[in-house]
Amino acid sequence: MCQLLGMNCNVPTDICFSFEGFSARGGKTDEHSDGWGIAFFEGKGCRIFLDAEASIASPIADFIRQYPIHSTHVIAHIRKATQGKIALENCHPFRRELWGRYWVFAHNGNLPDFNPENHGAFQPVGATDSEKAFCLILNTLRSHFPQGQPPLKELYQTLHKITKEIAILGSFNYILSNGQHFFTYCSTKLCYIIRQAPFAAAHLIDEEMTVDFSELTTPSDRVAVIVTTPLTDNEVWTQIQPGELLIFQDGLPLKLA
Amino acid sequence: MCQLLGMNCNVPTDICFSFEGFSARGGKTDEHSDGWGIAFFEGKGCRIFLDAEASIASPIADFIRQYPIHSTHVIAHIRKATQGKIALENCHPFRRELWGRYWVFAHNGNLPDFNPENHGAFQPVGATDSEKAFCLILNTLRSHFPQGQPPLKELYQTLHKITKEIAILGSFNYILSNGQHFFTYCSTKLCYIIRQAPFAAAHLIDEEMTVDFSELTTPSDRVAVIVTTPLTDNEVWTQIQPGELLIFQDGLPLKLA
Repeated sequence: MCQLLGMNCNVPTDICFSFEGFSARGGKTDEHSDGWGIAFFEGKGCRIFLDAEASIASPIADFIRQYPIHSTHVIAHIRKATQGKIALENCHPFRRELWGRYWVFAHNGNLPDFNPENHGAFQPVGATDSEKAFCLILNTLRSHFPQGQPPLKELYQTLHKITKEIAILGSFNYILSNGQHFFTYCSTKLCYIIRQAPFAAAHLIDEEMTVDFSELTTPSDRVAVIVTTPLTDNEVWTQIQPGELLIFQDGLPLKLA
Repeated sequence: MCQLLGMNCNVPTDICFSFEGFSARGGKTDEHSDGWGIAFFEGKGCRIFLDAEASIASPIADFIRQYPIHSTHVIAHIRKATQGKIALENCHPFRRELWGRYWVFAHNGNLPDFNPENHGAFQPVGATDSEKAFCLILNTLRSHFPQGQPPLKELYQTLHKITKEIAILGSFNYILSNGQHFFTYCSTKLCYIIRQAPFAAAHLIDEEMTVDFSELTTPSDRVAVIVTTPLTDNEVWTQIQPGELLIFQDGLPLKLA
């Protein structure tokens, strides 16, 4: 199994505080030490840092903890291998291009005996169930909408349908984004918090660290942090319901009309 | 215009020395300061570091100069924008997945008025002529070989044909790799050096730095470095001929039977 971390904001924000606590679970406070990765969207551009080393031992993770990259859409993952060896090609997040946009995906869970017929062009490079599922999702989306990206409501419905079909086969928590939309699916375990004015101090569970967000923010800032299990012990985190596919936009769950 | 740097080796090797000199051209010894990027294959896995900042000012480039990542297939690029604004999505190398492998591409040159009809699924995310050309190459390869990756000779012929069609339209030097094969095309300017036993000292042109490779290598190591203009002033670099598509393998140009 693995753990997921996502961030969606209304202004580009760094994820250093959350990543500090999260990455400690990659070998220090928890056992997810078989690789890690983090993707930052910046406009249509996207950069991903990956490493097959444990996030607590990785010089690249150390760099990310200290170097603030500002983004509105971030997806991170720490891995505990279930399917696929410990190797760079099996580290999440995975990325593909669809309809002229990058799509980034990370998965927490396990899909035993998941060998879908995969007729589309997206093929996994590594050996994880996760990347197979990602390719199946993208092939499904493209075959439903060959002309290009559909309106969000149609996209959501098709994504929700294929997601539920996959989720029947095991546990399938994921975060998926194309830099415009930010999808989070809870199969078994996923929660979130919205930080907005009035901001307060937050204290990490996994590290002895407190940040007073009121000193770092403007009153209009809003940040959603989505994670497998809560990162702080003095804030109230909201559990996403199993079976729920949420879209975050500008730091808030979006209600589709 | 831009500059290209590639490395292909028979054992995983770090590129710190070459990247030190190359990245100085991103704003210090030359004017290619509109972004940079570097891709490392590790087995089937691949990681890319990108930044829209000049390589001499980028903390990520600084990290890469100091942190030795070992790889047999490396592609790097420093950008001087011709088409497309200075932005992350326009930084090379670009990456796509084809036939279950990552393909990575970087371009030096300019293709004015390049607006190909692009019927395949690969679409550019950014606004560069380079990414359009990359997508056209991949769409062409997939439409010729829909069942999967063909033998190298057939792949080479199809790649060479589409390359020449594109190169007519401007200058089109590139490096392309899927982590197995390493293609370099010279349209106007590209050269290489093979370093192998007996190893000697090399001195950078762009920085006051000398490395004695005999102290860092074993007798069986072999490294090809491919670059737009020579990186060292005490070694003999070989110009690739305009119109020539070379394949490097295990640190040597490959002769196709």
